[in-house]
Amino acid sequence: MPDGAPTFSAAEYERRWRAIQSEMAMRGQDAILLTSAADVFYVTGFLTRFWESPARPWFVILPSAGAPLAVIPDIGRDLMQGCQVGEIRSWPAPRPGDDGVSLLADTLSDLLPETGTIGLPMGPETSLRMPLADYLVLTRALAPRRFVDATDTVQRVREIKSDVEIDAIRATCRCADAAFDRVPEIVVGAGRLDEVFRRFQIALLEEGADWVSYVAGGAGPGGYGNVIAPAEAAPLRDGDLLMLDTGAVKDGYFCDFDRNYAIGRADDDLRRVYDGLYRATEAALSALRPGMTARDAHELLTAGLRRAGLVSAGGRLGHGLGVTLTEWPSFTSLDETPLRENMVLTLEPGAVVSEGRIMVHEEDVVLRAGGPELLSRRAPPELPVIRR
Amino acid sequence: MPDGAPTFSAAEYERRWRAIQSEMAMRGQDAILLTSAADVFYVTGFLTRFWESPARPWFVILPSAGAPLAVIPDIGRDLMQGCQVGEIRSWPAPRPGDDGVSLLADTLSDLLPETGTIGLPMGPETSLRMPLADYLVLTRALAPRRFVDATDTVQRVREIKSDVEIDAIRATCRCADAAFDRVPEIVVGAGRLDEVFRRFQIALLEEGADWVSYVAGGAGPGGYGNVIAPAEAAPLRDGDLLMLDTGAVKDGYFCDFDRNYAIGRADDDLRRVYDGLYRATEAALSALRPGMTARDAHELLTAGLRRAGLVSAGGRLGHGLGVTLTEWPSFTSLDETPLRENMVLTLEPGAVVSEGRIMVHEEDVVLRAGGPELLSRRAPPELPVIRR
Repeated sequence: MPDGAPTFSAAEYERRWRAIQSEMAMRGQDAILLTSAADVFYVTGFLTRFWESPARPWFVILPSAGAPLAVIPDIGRDLMQGCQVGEIRSWPAPRPGDDGVSLLADTLSDLLPETGTIGLPMGPETSLRMPLADYLVLTRALAPRRFVDATDTVQRVREIKSDVEIDAIRATCRCADAAFDRVPEIVVGAGRLDEVFRRFQIALLEEGADWVSYVAGGAGPGGYGNVIAPAEAAPLRDGDLLMLDTGAVKDGYFCDFDRNYAIGRADDDLRRVYDGLYRATEAALSALRPGMTARDAHELLTAGLRRAGLVSAGGRLGHGLGVTLTEWPSFTSLDETPLRENMVLTLEPGAVVSEGRIMVHEEDVVLRAGGPELLSRRAPPELPVIRR
Repeated sequence: MPDGAPTFSAAEYERRWRAIQSEMAMRGQDAILLTSAADVFYVTGFLTRFWESPARPWFVILPSAGAPLAVIPDIGRDLMQGCQVGEIRSWPAPRPGDDGVSLLADTLSDLLPETGTIGLPMGPETSLRMPLADYLVLTRALAPRRFVDATDTVQRVREIKSDVEIDAIRATCRCADAAFDRVPEIVVGAGRLDEVFRRFQIALLEEGADWVSYVAGGAGPGGYGNVIAPAEAAPLRDGDLLMLDTGAVKDGYFCDFDRNYAIGRADDDLRRVYDGLYRATEAALSALRPGMTARDAHELLTAGLRRAGLVSAGGRLGHGLGVTLTEWPSFTSLDETPLRENMVLTLEPGAVVSEGRIMVHEEDVVLRAGGPELLSRRAPPELPVIRR
């Protein structure tokens, strides 16, 4: 493949454009404006870690038919040229006073009549990746054209994965499967939690991840306090429960699952909670079907925890997954999003072990007509013990 | 250190609050609202890779005096409790319909009279990390309180680094220095560019990086086409110029510099351009002083390229560095930001080797009263050749 060329065929991107354009037509949106790394990658294949730099905004417009237009900093032109995109307009960013705003306004004005409606994702799980002050200038420059919420327009398409996307997520999960297999040897070789985190990231890369966008975890006697902390430079001790959670990336697609390990010995409390989480997940793996809602998935997992006599650790019990570490929907009691065939989802029940100590279990699946198909290799049915 | 506790002392955070509060007072801002990973980390020490999940917004309010207040998802409460923050209010996110908005509005209403003014970074290099639709609800809920731009309020403080911050960036640079030293052995062992990227990230971790947020680069005969591409699965060939650029992270602080290597042999054109970039950097290293502007730095580097008979590759020729991969100012002909003592900056001249082929050179420095002090170990004066 040439430098930065998309992993997928032109046909895959054309399918995506048409699917979004069909949603746009249904909702009366004449074009949509995309500003996030994930949305831009989704419609063009433009993949770079350069989004890490907050210096420059990037814009992609999908018109009502045909290929997207890119309005981007000059520095991205060479890479964008290899992507699935029509016209590319660029400016020498960063440019104080007019950082692409007039070029973007002109492009949208050329494209849309004054009665035109521009869809912009502005709802849950979105954010506008451009300076807010520039957005306000843009809305004035484009008036009487109107910006409307295009969250559903994008999410209803992105949430259903194609075969090549499912294969990509499965490939990323394989890297994490292999890295998790190596955790016992890593723990034996590394006494401290920060060393474990470091070597686990190395294992993910060695097993084929392109990069590691997310590692979190925790360790402590009888569980951990939270699931989002970076590593502390503290020794692992016998009796600790260790959890590692990763969002590795391969070809732009994430995995997101965790594994738990008992250090030295597994106390009864930990075994009991692990078993309950495992069985709650099994129940969801066998009962989840397209046509249910995110709320139903939450209820399935909650019922599983209840049957095991466990108290939920709270928060959502699973979510979507794909070109970002987490995607909608959220398995909560309030999320009515319908679950549909070929959604990629995580099942993530968590339970309280004791006051302030929790355990969380996570698997990645694709929802098929007949139920979930695992993308992560199923966690072992009993809490693994790492003896040093 | 306990799980996720800030690396720095309470005194460092109190200094930051007071410095920002003094800017707020000058600009008539009664509180500021922060939503980005970098700003939240800067004022509280809250460090997590969980920002990778777009599912939930996070809010930190700095009032006119005293400690910041956190208004955050429940999932972050445990980690935030160890940070430098006053009151923590949290809600069970994600919550469709009211994802923290009413809690944030109530908190700001409690804090500020109806005549109050809320600063929000909305200018260059910022973006609002919350759904735009929720921001619009928030502005209505808080009216007649007004939101005003607080970009300067935050940037004028963050851009001047304290001794502990400079030490942190130097420590991250050390990891990258050591990893770059290993590139020749990596290239000999890995025939393909994607393997080089992977092993270079492993080397960064082995040399002490906590994680690797950014690696980009390129390779090709007579230079590369751009500096932001992910790796292609293509073999390195004799005569190629290889560039690797990294933003590794340690204790939340980035480095950002690159190194160039000739594969097998260094053709005259490559030697000549490398020498010109090296000398342009030397000139800036000796002449740059506090009191100059970003534009002056651009002119110093441009003059150096001109003297060497090189054509600039365009774009900015350096920028700030700290808690994100890149920070303001930008070394362009338009950026009038004054350069001040203890700014951490990159010097990043790039030149055209031939049509569509460029070479870019980068170092990290802290600007002292007497001139730049290198934080990266200076690149070798001649283009290194890796013989396989």
